[in-house]
Amino acid sequence: MSAWFSCSYMARRGVAAGRVGKKHHLTEAKQGSYQYVYGPYAAPVLTIAPGDVVVAETLDAFGGAIKSVDDRPSQKLKFPFVNPQNGPIAVEGAEKGDVLCVRIDAIAPRGPQPVGTSALIPEFGGLVGNAGTPMLNPPLPERVMKYHVTESGVRFNDKIVLPFEPFIGTLGVSPQIEAVLSLQPDYWGGNMDLPDVAPGAIAYFPVQTKGANLFLGDCHGRQGDGELCGVAVEIPSTTTIHVDLIKSWAIVWPRLENERFIMTIGSARPMEDAARIAYRELIRWLVADYGFDELEAYFLLTQAGRMRVGNMVDPKYTLGASILKDYLPSK
Amino acid sequence: MSAWFSCSYMARRGVAAGRVGKKHHLTEAKQGSYQYVYGPYAAPVLTIAPGDVVVAETLDAFGGAIKSVDDRPSQKLKFPFVNPQNGPIAVEGAEKGDVLCVRIDAIAPRGPQPVGTSALIPEFGGLVGNAGTPMLNPPLPERVMKYHVTESGVRFNDKIVLPFEPFIGTLGVSPQIEAVLSLQPDYWGGNMDLPDVAPGAIAYFPVQTKGANLFLGDCHGRQGDGELCGVAVEIPSTTTIHVDLIKSWAIVWPRLENERFIMTIGSARPMEDAARIAYRELIRWLVADYGFDELEAYFLLTQAGRMRVGNMVDPKYTLGASILKDYLPSK
Amino acid sequence: MSAWFSCSYMARRGVAAGRVGKKHHLTEAKQGSYQYVYGPYAAPVLTIAPGDVVVAETLDAFGGAIKSVDDRPSQKLKFPFVNPQNGPIAVEGAEKGDVLCVRIDAIAPRGPQPVGTSALIPEFGGLVGNAGTPMLNPPLPERVMKYHVTESGVRFNDKIVLPFEPFIGTLGVSPQIEAVLSLQPDYWGGNMDLPDVAPGAIAYFPVQTKGANLFLGDCHGRQGDGELCGVAVEIPSTTTIHVDLIKSWAIVWPRLENERFIMTIGSARPMEDAARIAYRELIRWLVADYGFDELEAYFLLTQAGRMRVGNMVDPKYTLGASILKDYLPSK
Amino acid sequence: MSAWFSCSYMARRGVAAGRVGKKHHLTEAKQGSYQYVYGPYAAPVLTIAPGDVVVAETLDAFGGAIKSVDDRPSQKLKFPFVNPQNGPIAVEGAEKGDVLCVRIDAIAPRGPQPVGTSALIPEFGGLVGNAGTPMLNPPLPERVMKYHVTESGVRFNDKIVLPFEPFIGTLGVSPQIEAVLSLQPDYWGGNMDLPDVAPGAIAYFPVQTKGANLFLGDCHGRQGDGELCGVAVEIPSTTTIHVDLIKSWAIVWPRLENERFIMTIGSARPMEDAARIAYRELIRWLVADYGFDELEAYFLLTQAGRMRVGNMVDPKYTLGASILKDYLPSK
Repeated sequence: MSAWFSCSYMARRGVAAGRVGKKHHLTEAKQGSYQYVYGPYAAPVLTIAPGDVVVAETLDAFGGAIKSVDDRPSQKLKFPFVNPQNGPIAVEGAEKGDVLCVRIDAIAPRGPQPVGTSALIPEFGGLVGNAGTPMLNPPLPERVMKYHVTESGVRFNDKIVLPFEPFIGTLGVSPQIEAVLSLQPDYWGGNMDLPDVAPGAIAYFPVQTKGANLFLGDCHGRQGDGELCGVAVEIPSTTTIHVDLIKSWAIVWPRLENERFIMTIGSARPMEDAARIAYRELIRWLVADYGFDELEAYFLLTQAGRMRVGNMVDPKYTLGASILKDYLPSK
Repeated sequence: MSAWFSCSYMARRGVAAGRVGKKHHLTEAKQGSYQYVYGPYAAPVLTIAPGDVVVAETLDAFGGAIKSVDDRPSQKLKFPFVNPQNGPIAVEGAEKGDVLCVRIDAIAPRGPQPVGTSALIPEFGGLVGNAGTPMLNPPLPERVMKYHVTESGVRFNDKIVLPFEPFIGTLGVSPQIEAVLSLQPDYWGGNMDLPDVAPGAIAYFPVQTKGANLFLGDCHGRQGDGELCGVAVEIPSTTTIHVDLIKSWAIVWPRLENERFIMTIGSARPMEDAARIAYRELIRWLVADYGFDELEAYFLLTQAGRMRVGNMVDPKYTLGASILKDYLPSK
Repeated sequence: MSAWFSCSYMARRGVAAGRVGKKHHLTEAKQGSYQYVYGPYAAPVLTIAPGDVVVAETLDAFGGAIKSVDDRPSQKLKFPFVNPQNGPIAVEGAEKGDVLCVRIDAIAPRGPQPVGTSALIPEFGGLVGNAGTPMLNPPLPERVMKYHVTESGVRFNDKIVLPFEPFIGTLGVSPQIEAVLSLQPDYWGGNMDLPDVAPGAIAYFPVQTKGANLFLGDCHGRQGDGELCGVAVEIPSTTTIHVDLIKSWAIVWPRLENERFIMTIGSARPMEDAARIAYRELIRWLVADYGFDELEAYFLLTQAGRMRVGNMVDPKYTLGASILKDYLPSK
Repeated sequence: MSAWFSCSYMARRGVAAGRVGKKHHLTEAKQGSYQYVYGPYAAPVLTIAPGDVVVAETLDAFGGAIKSVDDRPSQKLKFPFVNPQNGPIAVEGAEKGDVLCVRIDAIAPRGPQPVGTSALIPEFGGLVGNAGTPMLNPPLPERVMKYHVTESGVRFNDKIVLPFEPFIGTLGVSPQIEAVLSLQPDYWGGNMDLPDVAPGAIAYFPVQTKGANLFLGDCHGRQGDGELCGVAVEIPSTTTIHVDLIKSWAIVWPRLENERFIMTIGSARPMEDAARIAYRELIRWLVADYGFDELEAYFLLTQAGRMRVGNMVDPKYTLGASILKDYLPSK
């Protein structure tokens, strides 16, 4: 256990207190049908205890349907059956009002090279007329990119190799009575596409239902802020997460911590509302757990808050507000 | 001249080619009346040549009117006479279609401690009902903070000292026929409140008028992303800039570079439009100067672009899109 | 059958061709449990044929929980169990790609006076910090209004009586694989809160699932544009609708017609995206059914389009774009 | 004087109390150079007294530069020299804190037929990528429409004649120290493109400077809500206005009244902020002049407020919130 992890909310407040329990392998075969909504209506494929580890074989966001640069996304993708998810994973003892902790331990590309895919999809993306912001302009051409991705880098083209900085694009718990497309990020997590949800971080989600119903998928070999064209370096993966449960922690939106900072995550449109949500929730955190009064926290974030743009392309935009632990009283 | 500077757009394309010319002292006395609009209607206080250096005595954003924590901003501030600016500074040879280069060499706090001021101002700020997003809720109390600021840190309170990371909050050139409040950021620069406009960076502005009419002011001892409550660590300063001119460089929005990255800066509401503007302009840059085709640049920024939130409180929100020079072909 | 109805899309293209079939009474008793999501997972409470009429006993948006002006909404409402809906009603023969036609024939208040309720609910409303646009300001007080509502008027107070102009606040079909709160409007209809969905109008919804799964509820005695505080004149009602089915009509968002105009309905945030969606879809309609080319339709709506603001308070804002039939070639 | 006018704010509170003073002819010759900014820096072309009438010869929004359907806007228009304005007109006695009243008496097309112009301009319009919401999509083709416009109608094409419903697209007073493009609407009026600013209405503007500096121009033969493609039926006109002054009336945004309703006008992005501004200001009006308390006014507008979309294409979007005088206590 790394030094900082022992000081994390997960280790200090979790039911398992940082201990590692049983390891579960959620292979493609065990998963069977992948899921396309975050909701309470599908039966769990796996039930785990707090402290358990899950090694999941995730599909890429296209379910592997885009196999070559000659494929046309509009022909290969059958909306709404995109962004397939592993899960739901039930967590023993979880109930509404708790917080599910997901420490991300590892993400490895899985399958033959070139294992990474990106694409221009009609009516989708941050700099084109799309379903949410429709325009009369003619569309861009469809285009598929295939990237060689290993732990030593993402080969963008013959000249440019970008660092391998993998993360989980879509991760979260079930809403209480809704079942919402895995394409959407919201207060339960989902398709946040936020690069900080990466190995070395712990994500916290507000449990809405008995068992929590954890879902995950959509791993990325890397991504720029905003996921500009709408499609990162999409990879199938073997992803390892360590799960725990904090009882009775009232959080409204997902949170995250790593060795350096604590973060709150908001998803909304317009983008300023995502920023407001994230900062508003971070003030709540500073007040509840660090002894600030509300206005003092407002001033501190004015001078030292940081904002990460996750996605600017999904049904809601996702931003993460954070502050370095260096600036906070030690816990 | 540092190594990277010799490879900068300013040094390579500027009229002065990186050479340092005359040094001008724009003291409070020489400035006389400070300016409250960015426009072509005021006579220059100073005329300089490309390559010249200006050492300006800037006022804080309140023109020094908030002297103690007992002052009430609503009584001390006389809108629209806030955010006073040095300038206009005419640059010989500048005309519409050129680009003004402003390398920021130094920013030092000026005046007695505590030299830094922040405040909660009624109807202003990122997490309150305000003039642009009005609400019926009761306002927050007015409050003033005074911070001790030196090169070794910003003393937020007895326990927290934040790094001194100064930058110029408001910097830019005159619009062609408009005169717009110095509170507003726009395609000519202005009140961008973007922490990257800091010593070590070169900012580039599209000249709109003969002589460019450079303005600057509103220095900050530091600031978090978004300038959440609307008021950073406001300081009067002695600020040193090195100015040059690039002839016939067609840029639409401000740009910036430093040792590590190139950045384009967009200001708009809603926030996603600022993000779109910034990324759209960065694609133009990658195409014009780095040999990418447009869709290739779109993909590259999807995987490697970065987005900095400057302000989420001014009349337009400001975001900076950037990419590390490491990922670009060398110039 | 009124003269214009015989020229409507419903009468001309519907499977039942305007004929009236069986009348079904969907009483509270028959409904049993009301529904809180629009989705495909609940079993139909009623199956009808195209041409059938349904007389539904709807609850008010609070399920009747707010009984007096002394009630506090925060104590009486148990989110997400608000905005109860009748349904789902399966329609024989409906399948994805079809359009469900709902002619609204009558809406009558149901129950003892004062039968109308409005309220200020914490963290909800168009002019207060709320869940989607959070603020630090203190909240407004909770407040409940009870209105006497009959066909001759809504008694706002002792001096002001407003016209009774009832409509269905929430109406639509099930998404394909999602189950989404009845609080949300979207491309399947839902909580549009658009006053044009009123007796005399026919609404058209794009069917997403086998049987369409029609839901309705949330009737209003009247409402201003935008539903400003978030709560209209909420009434329990007896609502009569006439349902038909148009096979293979590809529409993307809800449409509506009445004697005077045709309308397309968009729901999104920010509000301009709802406007774009509505006008974009209206151009599609003008091109497909009225012989315009796309740019000609763009010009026509520039000069003659009309925009109605439904709600500016729900998870998505709803706007209706319309054009008078007088300006269109007759069908 | 019509019956309702004698009850108007202009007639009841104006310095001239409804009386008609001198008539001034602001011909093209007298105007000389037209204005392209709303500001205090140009000398008045005319000085009038409260009660005076001005008959102005306005140019169309293109200054007449687009003469035929074969012209290309991108070649004929020289940004920022578009939307030429008559003025500034100084009003004796006007000073900051007053309100300028402008009753619109008549708007007649001026010049040879076809006198009306519309156009698709690159990077401009509500359903295309544009300067404020840039996209990578290819642009639409440029296109010019010429319309025959008389008091009996606007001939859209051979089959469609739309009613002649003229209004002033751009009207307002000078900001205090700014000079802002006549393309922009704001709290001083400007390019609101709101069809209610029509003969029979009185517009009220908050005076910011000594003399008020009234500007007007950009008359439209008619326009749909939102001015979708960005260009209405642009006409040169002879426009007659009756001007008065109300001393010491504290209004923050433009207001309007006609025989049927009172309206407040907000301009902002995103569009919901324009709606918030307009409704917030209408609540202020109901409280100050009609005896409502704030929450009561909030409820009343929830049930009876109306919202008109002026433009969704200018630098700020303009919406007008109104309520019928029938629902208000008589004055």
